[in-house]
Amino acid sequence: MFSANITSKSTSDGVVERAFTLGEVPGVIWSPEAGSGRAPLVLVGHGAGTGLGAAGVVGRARRLVLDGGFAVVAIDAPGHGDRQRTETDEREVAAVRRALRAGEPAVPIMVRYIADIAARAVPEWRAVLDSLLALPEFDGAQVGYFGLNMGTAIGVPLTAVDSRITAAVFGQFWPGTVVEAAGRVTVPVEFLLQWDDERVDRESALALFDAFASKEKSLHANSGGHKEVPRFETDSMVRFFTRHLRRPSGAEA
Amino acid sequence: MFSANITSKSTSDGVVERAFTLGEVPGVIWSPEAGSGRAPLVLVGHGAGTGLGAAGVVGRARRLVLDGGFAVVAIDAPGHGDRQRTETDEREVAAVRRALRAGEPAVPIMVRYIADIAARAVPEWRAVLDSLLALPEFDGAQVGYFGLNMGTAIGVPLTAVDSRITAAVFGQFWPGTVVEAAGRVTVPVEFLLQWDDERVDRESALALFDAFASKEKSLHANSGGHKEVPRFETDSMVRFFTRHLRRPSGAEA
Repeated sequence: MFSANITSKSTSDGVVERAFTLGEVPGVIWSPEAGSGRAPLVLVGHGAGTGLGAAGVVGRARRLVLDGGFAVVAIDAPGHGDRQRTETDEREVAAVRRALRAGEPAVPIMVRYIADIAARAVPEWRAVLDSLLALPEFDGAQVGYFGLNMGTAIGVPLTAVDSRITAAVFGQFWPGTVVEAAGRVTVPVEFLLQWDDERVDRESALALFDAFASKEKSLHANSGGHKEVPRFETDSMVRFFTRHLRRPSGAEA
Repeated sequence: MFSANITSKSTSDGVVERAFTLGEVPGVIWSPEAGSGRAPLVLVGHGAGTGLGAAGVVGRARRLVLDGGFAVVAIDAPGHGDRQRTETDEREVAAVRRALRAGEPAVPIMVRYIADIAARAVPEWRAVLDSLLALPEFDGAQVGYFGLNMGTAIGVPLTAVDSRITAAVFGQFWPGTVVEAAGRVTVPVEFLLQWDDERVDRESALALFDAFASKEKSLHANSGGHKEVPRFETDSMVRFFTRHLRRPSGAEA
């Protein structure tokens, strides 16, 4: 049973966009206007400090729908987007700001805070999946997950515990609190890092890629800084999910 | 003036294949049967111990022609394929075999021998380019180079000295004798390594990728051993050359 409430619906350039809430969690579903059968679903996780409305989320969702024929869902992470911050959120955000202002290391605080967010976000994602996959319009046998930065910190433990996710794209995060869960991920993984990332150092990102237990994994490292992930990686992501979520059809090997 | 002699011509499944010799160097040109204007040219270098007839060369050439509309040329490297071995070739091949038989390190001998082959191969490639680009059928403004292993050892110094090459795919080689030339390569580079390569260790391959001076470079590291480069990397290579060698047409960004 889909217990989420659809709060709005609109269509733009071939993509249907439905906003919903599930309990206190706001989400959006993007799907092809010209639907043909049950679409494989791709979950898209946003980065820290943004929400499901971030340009990188909406842009990738549209490409997945239009180029891959996928349905896409994104939700606001705890303390992010349109959601209220808890006392923990307020305290940790203040601690990060204080460290940055004082020129002290902020990464350990961010990693600790993001681990707390991830612990809250994983059961939310699972509840959203329960609700959506009860609907006949989605192909529950083939679910993908995409998320960089905080989207990786949430997606790695989610993929480790939820066997409905059969392929995932991660990247740009430290091994820290995620490495143990990465060792339990066995589905195909595409992993992005920026070779000149000024936030996540190269060795840390390589160590996290190395930790995945997946038999099939690919690292894409591109020159440039943290925010300079090339646009052609969006194409690569769509092709990755097409290879893995549409494999039974034999359309692409 | 094209001073090479075409020795045979055949057509198979949409691809024209012309064998030629330029001096003592045998080569093959693959091009679209249904040609439309001047095709950008991609040079394909083979690995050690094989020749231009290797399955990996012919397969990639056909994909470049059929999926990308490129013309492709491959030549036998010195001491390889149909070519005579010199005394140096015989001595070095014997030295590698002796080391392998005795369980001694063969990599230093291979790297030394391949550097010698590369020094002979670079002027041969440049002579082939001179000849081909004198013909009106090729677009001399946009030339690509693909080669892994020994194909990288030859291609990196070639790309460093020949400004006609404007994009290159390399991979699976040690920094050794190549790293200095890599520091003079500034064109876009896609670099392949195998995460579990039993011949070229991970750190060496990462160090060679790091050495390229190119503003735009991408590393693709895939799980699996030396011989297990995934087939989807051939698609990626075709897209890479399409992005860079066909950029002025605006057909693909």
